[in-house]
Amino acid sequence: MTGSHKPESGSDKPDFDPDFRARLHALLAWRRDVRRFRREPLPPGTIERLVGLAHLAPSVGLSQPWRFVLVETPARRAAVRANFVRCNAAALAAQAPERARHYARLKLAGLDAAPCQLAVFADRATAQGHGLGRHTMPQTLDYSAVMAAHTLWLAARAEGVGMGWVSILDPAAVCAALEVPGEWHFIGYFCLGYAETADTVPALETAGWEERRPPQEFLIRR
Amino acid sequence: MTGSHKPESGSDKPDFDPDFRARLHALLAWRRDVRRFRREPLPPGTIERLVGLAHLAPSVGLSQPWRFVLVETPARRAAVRANFVRCNAAALAAQAPERARHYARLKLAGLDAAPCQLAVFADRATAQGHGLGRHTMPQTLDYSAVMAAHTLWLAARAEGVGMGWVSILDPAAVCAALEVPGEWHFIGYFCLGYAETADTVPALETAGWEERRPPQEFLIRR
Repeated sequence: MTGSHKPESGSDKPDFDPDFRARLHALLAWRRDVRRFRREPLPPGTIERLVGLAHLAPSVGLSQPWRFVLVETPARRAAVRANFVRCNAAALAAQAPERARHYARLKLAGLDAAPCQLAVFADRATAQGHGLGRHTMPQTLDYSAVMAAHTLWLAARAEGVGMGWVSILDPAAVCAALEVPGEWHFIGYFCLGYAETADTVPALETAGWEERRPPQEFLIRR
Repeated sequence: MTGSHKPESGSDKPDFDPDFRARLHALLAWRRDVRRFRREPLPPGTIERLVGLAHLAPSVGLSQPWRFVLVETPARRAAVRANFVRCNAAALAAQAPERARHYARLKLAGLDAAPCQLAVFADRATAQGHGLGRHTMPQTLDYSAVMAAHTLWLAARAEGVGMGWVSILDPAAVCAALEVPGEWHFIGYFCLGYAETADTVPALETAGWEERRPPQEFLIRR
């Protein structure tokens, strides 16, 4: 697949062969936005290891703006859950009636069962990186934190750990509940744990909410 | 590493074993923001295959808001390059004098050598997904497109193809140069090609611009 180009220079470069690529593609296909978790906890050290791997994500100007908050105390988890319930009701009300009936049946959060809950933020005030690459596009700090969360997601799935992104939340309420610094911008709230099932089909497609469309529809030439 | 939990249900589930995980971690470590490319073109079909894999990224509400624009015509490439030069000069002026000298030496774009150039957008007006999950956080559409770009990055590296993110651009100028629909939000401009060198150390660290900090500095508990 890589053609007959000359090899890169660089010592100890790993060999990413066709077998690895096939399994990487399987990882991408089997990664799911998990909503149904078993309650058993992750083994000690799991989340710390996954956060360490997330640290290998790209970041604008090497700013590493990602901030991970492991949410452990019952009161804070309850505050996030209550905020989800409130926002979910508002989202339900915003849907067309026939869609709203469908929406109400979707189980949209694993907040009650997931043993591990992680909030991700971007520190928009970080001095690290000395501003490089973000002068015209400051949102690249947020994007860097998104890629760290996505890296964690893939690394988790490779360990058999499922992850789900909860976005039906009011960012200000989450920041308040978790008492994070004011310059931290909320990116997402993630549930982690062992998934009840494994699948290559998104739950929203199985539930009839939406279908995936083929890649060629999303590539144009200029 | 996955502990002694019960296996997930689900047929044909691939086995992500320790060997695969080790190679996945190597992929994360060897992925780089490539700036120095060889000029040889990518084999036909490469970018279409990589865009297809990017399509496996998560998206809010299964909205698939990512839009890929393969930039091929010399006039459009020249317009993007001119915009980069302008923005880079402004960014240089914004740095402290001692930093600016350093900055001027950094080679910040592979725009002249990279044989393949790809702009990524998020379609903020897409009806796909029926608004699910983005009521309180509409920026999750942008984040979905970021994860598609990141997926493409990893899939490219696994094929020996390097990628670099150019963010020193004025989004409005890029949208104008590429004549994309007004509701498409610019995420990033990416250079792809075979890298001159392979490395586990970010170029900005090698150049003395910034150092990476350890993961434990970025994980707190609440």
